[in-house]
Amino acid sequence: MAVAKTARATKKRGSLGRPEGRTESREALLDAAERYFAERGYAAANLREIAEDANVTQAMANYWFGTKQELFRQVYLRRGAWLATRRMELLDEVTAKKRYALEDILRAYITPPFQLRESAQGRAFLRLQARLHAEPDETAYALRREVYDQPVRAYVKILAALLPRLTDEHLYLRFAQFIGIYIYILSDAHRIDEISGTRCRPPSAAKLIDEIVRFTASGFKG
Amino acid sequence: MAVAKTARATKKRGSLGRPEGRTESREALLDAAERYFAERGYAAANLREIAEDANVTQAMANYWFGTKQELFRQVYLRRGAWLATRRMELLDEVTAKKRYALEDILRAYITPPFQLRESAQGRAFLRLQARLHAEPDETAYALRREVYDQPVRAYVKILAALLPRLTDEHLYLRFAQFIGIYIYILSDAHRIDEISGTRCRPPSAAKLIDEIVRFTASGFKG
Repeated sequence: MAVAKTARATKKRGSLGRPEGRTESREALLDAAERYFAERGYAAANLREIAEDANVTQAMANYWFGTKQELFRQVYLRRGAWLATRRMELLDEVTAKKRYALEDILRAYITPPFQLRESAQGRAFLRLQARLHAEPDETAYALRREVYDQPVRAYVKILAALLPRLTDEHLYLRFAQFIGIYIYILSDAHRIDEISGTRCRPPSAAKLIDEIVRFTASGFKG
Repeated sequence: MAVAKTARATKKRGSLGRPEGRTESREALLDAAERYFAERGYAAANLREIAEDANVTQAMANYWFGTKQELFRQVYLRRGAWLATRRMELLDEVTAKKRYALEDILRAYITPPFQLRESAQGRAFLRLQARLHAEPDETAYALRREVYDQPVRAYVKILAALLPRLTDEHLYLRFAQFIGIYIYILSDAHRIDEISGTRCRPPSAAKLIDEIVRFTASGFKG
């Protein structure tokens, strides 16, 4: 649901003064690219195949994005912008309350990526993101910074007020561990099943969020 | 140091009844492949280039490994076997003591991968592993299972004895979070720097291990 809403919002912004068909083709191209990058990785994804899949001419794809790198950037930023906005909205909602706990802040941060898991297209983005987090190059860093910087700083600022005895370095080190947890758990919940030798069934999103919030809150306080 | 030891051990095993030169070429091919897979990813890595880099004929590379997939498997299992063995040895060392704490068990599990970070070749493996953890396909699962299954079960068994009120499902869910943390932190410590807006310097391996052990121990107990 969350994903569908974003797609609509993006279309609306993109369609100012342009024929609706073009905007839809551009979105279709971004959707196809998201799937290709997620399934095959950046290197193996092919601009020509992506354009064909989206039923867009390669001339049009080149006109909009120019290079595979720019197409990747736009695919990543489209959902990344939604993630960042949603995180800031939820943080504002929590902190507008008279009283809130560490757990409420942690929950606000990880709820939006778990919502992405609800649609196939959102899951494609999560795979693509897990891949990007495994890339230690400068382009990947720059792209992640564009999406994560503002929310991470805003969240850490609130956490600092809730945990006044932690230094900035400790706060960031613990926040990094929190990020590592949710990215790993989200990259495939199937994995819980896997490492436990299929003794346990894949838990629901709500249960995973509860478990991550509890574990991480103890980690931050410990 | 740890890595050099492994390489020697592998060579010794590999060289039974074979001319030493061949074993060295085979190791050189595995080293080159480890770097290529880490730097370019699986899809973009090219068997011909890897063989050239290792100064091995492509016929020989084909004879030893046949396919790129088998070469990847051997690259992964070479260090993966070392990781699994080292983890089991350290677990035995800790549990041989009269008294040991949850923290000692967690430290034993993450010390070997942090040792890999000490050499360029080990760092190549860690990047490759981070990539593999971002791949949700069956081949990746099967490969990870070969390396992780035995140690994870042995560690969780000891953790279960130390944390008797946790169910199996909770133990595995928390162990998965522990894995997510160390893989993310290891994939590049530079990242701590990055998310903190370069306010903090990259911490030493010893400090990162201490921080992960502390955070995770609180998480397990919480």
